[in-house]
Amino acid sequence: MATNDVPAAVAAQLDAARRVMQQADTLAALSASPDHIERCYLTEQHAQANQQVGQWMQDAGLTSHTDAVGNIVGVRDTGAPTLIIGSHLDTIPNAGRYDGILGVLCGVEMAAQLPDLPLSLEIIGFGEEEGVRFGTTLICSRGRAGIWDPAWADIEDADGVTVASAMQHFGLTVADVGSARPNKKIAGFLELHIEQGPVLEDLGLPVGVVTGIAGAKRFSASVTGQAGHAGTVPMNLRRDAVVGSAECIRLATELAVELNVVATVGRIEASPGAVNVIAGQATFSLDVRSIDDQAVDRFVDEWQRRVQQAMQAQGLTFELSMTHNAQAVQCAPHLQQAVAAAISELGIEAYHLPSGAGHDAMAMAHLTDVGMIFMRCKDGLSHHPDESVTVTDVAWGLATLKGSIENLARN
Amino acid sequence: MATNDVPAAVAAQLDAARRVMQQADTLAALSASPDHIERCYLTEQHAQANQQVGQWMQDAGLTSHTDAVGNIVGVRDTGAPTLIIGSHLDTIPNAGRYDGILGVLCGVEMAAQLPDLPLSLEIIGFGEEEGVRFGTTLICSRGRAGIWDPAWADIEDADGVTVASAMQHFGLTVADVGSARPNKKIAGFLELHIEQGPVLEDLGLPVGVVTGIAGAKRFSASVTGQAGHAGTVPMNLRRDAVVGSAECIRLATELAVELNVVATVGRIEASPGAVNVIAGQATFSLDVRSIDDQAVDRFVDEWQRRVQQAMQAQGLTFELSMTHNAQAVQCAPHLQQAVAAAISELGIEAYHLPSGAGHDAMAMAHLTDVGMIFMRCKDGLSHHPDESVTVTDVAWGLATLKGSIENLARN
Repeated sequence: MATNDVPAAVAAQLDAARRVMQQADTLAALSASPDHIERCYLTEQHAQANQQVGQWMQDAGLTSHTDAVGNIVGVRDTGAPTLIIGSHLDTIPNAGRYDGILGVLCGVEMAAQLPDLPLSLEIIGFGEEEGVRFGTTLICSRGRAGIWDPAWADIEDADGVTVASAMQHFGLTVADVGSARPNKKIAGFLELHIEQGPVLEDLGLPVGVVTGIAGAKRFSASVTGQAGHAGTVPMNLRRDAVVGSAECIRLATELAVELNVVATVGRIEASPGAVNVIAGQATFSLDVRSIDDQAVDRFVDEWQRRVQQAMQAQGLTFELSMTHNAQAVQCAPHLQQAVAAAISELGIEAYHLPSGAGHDAMAMAHLTDVGMIFMRCKDGLSHHPDESVTVTDVAWGLATLKGSIENLARN
Repeated sequence: MATNDVPAAVAAQLDAARRVMQQADTLAALSASPDHIERCYLTEQHAQANQQVGQWMQDAGLTSHTDAVGNIVGVRDTGAPTLIIGSHLDTIPNAGRYDGILGVLCGVEMAAQLPDLPLSLEIIGFGEEEGVRFGTTLICSRGRAGIWDPAWADIEDADGVTVASAMQHFGLTVADVGSARPNKKIAGFLELHIEQGPVLEDLGLPVGVVTGIAGAKRFSASVTGQAGHAGTVPMNLRRDAVVGSAECIRLATELAVELNVVATVGRIEASPGAVNVIAGQATFSLDVRSIDDQAVDRFVDEWQRRVQQAMQAQGLTFELSMTHNAQAVQCAPHLQQAVAAAISELGIEAYHLPSGAGHDAMAMAHLTDVGMIFMRCKDGLSHHPDESVTVTDVAWGLATLKGSIENLARN
């Protein structure tokens, strides 16, 4: 290890890391609110961010333009296939300053650091990933990947402004969205992103190789028993929907560990919901995710089997209805290898982990092979003003991204 | 067994049972609403019910009057100590027609059937037990027992009418409430009531001996962990407040069976309560009851011990605050024996069971020894228009009450 206990290749990125974090601070000021960070799709702040990032792209030796769906794109065409690097510039209300943004700024930094790369480069700052303004996520990366849904044009924001009208105000034309899809040979898509989870921090690793983006199924569950007086019904004659739901939750947690998925009951309510009444009904949500879609299905089947058995034994009935279903996206093996080799070359374990959250890479997988690098963030926290990364970790991220690109360029 | 498979003493009460149920129908029509039964303290319907029941008392050979807190009281004074029999005439909104009422009407029927009883008799229809109008239960039986709280005079109903003002409107004077307490030798208090629970029905028994009225403690519990992304936090790194609460509920149910108390979680909520967010906090209510106050205390101590251990193992913190605390009331052994002997004489098991719900007998225990007879009701249901009893079961109730009174008169 070199300076400050980091390898030379990471130490060499410390100045760049400081620069990138300063740029993140600059973007954080382009907000709809003076009190917190909020930058939504097709707003004035979006235009300001595109202009600022476009300038940095030009400083890095790229030509920049806003594409047909509002992404800021920096291009260097060498005639070779194009490696696309990017993430998103939009935020939720009261956001942190690194979620998405860091992946764009590190990409621009790479363009500057690798002027002689034997690949064409596109650095993209996607205009919309969070889906805050129009309630639909990944609009811009899906537009870039050529899977824009024409129905989106009519979606209204909270003020009744449609996507089509907001695009027009932004200087875009909804009829042109088809041209956002690049018409050239693509070498792949790389996205660096904060983990938004605690795994790397828990392992003491600054970066990791993303294996894929989890598929998710969501359900609304209901347990029905019989309401009764909290004082007059003995324990053995109860059909208590809250007690039944507690067992459903226990079974979900147990089975999630067994089958290596994550399962979450985030919402639960009892009815009638009075302190002195045995609940006749309880409803709760279930969110199940894995990068292995079959594991999700196995979980749902086996959980339902165990739950039905347990509920029947308690004289309760159980109903489940699916409210959301998204398939998993796998990161391409050769992109995972390029990232893993870059991390190994820096002298630490190339830890592979799935992404439980969605990312622009999910959409870009419809255009090309995708790969992702996760960077450690403090307490696994994101979507919060306390979102935090260290200069050293950003340097690790830059060194990993640089090594990954160089590995890809060599193959 | 005699007619209709019931013993002769029960068959002999079938006509009286039909009469009592017809009287219950008559009272059900004295309601604040044409659509459902609703009869609250110191209302016009209360006055009408007192007048009607007072008439039936006179028909049964009693003299009747409304006492200083609004109870209708039928008296027959033989110079001997007074056995008091009664229950309440008020109802919740959308009530059944037997809860409370049956105990008053069966008492009046006994006065008619036992003209030569060597005891003085008081049959009471308490004016308020449910606490609907002024949010305070047992006002009238507590007044009769001499434990009226002067602060009650100022309690307002939903329309801002105070107890004092409502009393005045009813023809009563709050300064006179002290005279409601009978100034004579009392032999005891007997209350017949529907069980409001499923135990007798489950055992196939029409009546049972009440051992006492459960004490209750109520708590508000909160489990705190760490909110997190439902996709990005692996199961082993979670501090999920819903999973923790489910374990608290499992432990409560398990321990309630062990310690022979009833424990109920009737209300539960997760925060932030989103389908895709691991709950950082969950709150729930706990209601614990037993006729053994020490069993309630043992439950609370041991449950907290087990919960603290389980929550600590999950990285969660747990807090508990008591919101309600009522002591248990025991039925007097000699009154239990009088009822048990009466049931045994009818040829069935004298099953002893506690009351989980509160009753006027709780208040009357401050004046004299109390005893209670429970009568089977359909599905254990009360506080509902579907509240239901059979003619035969009412006949069992009358025969049991009659036998109990005769047993007391003999001793």
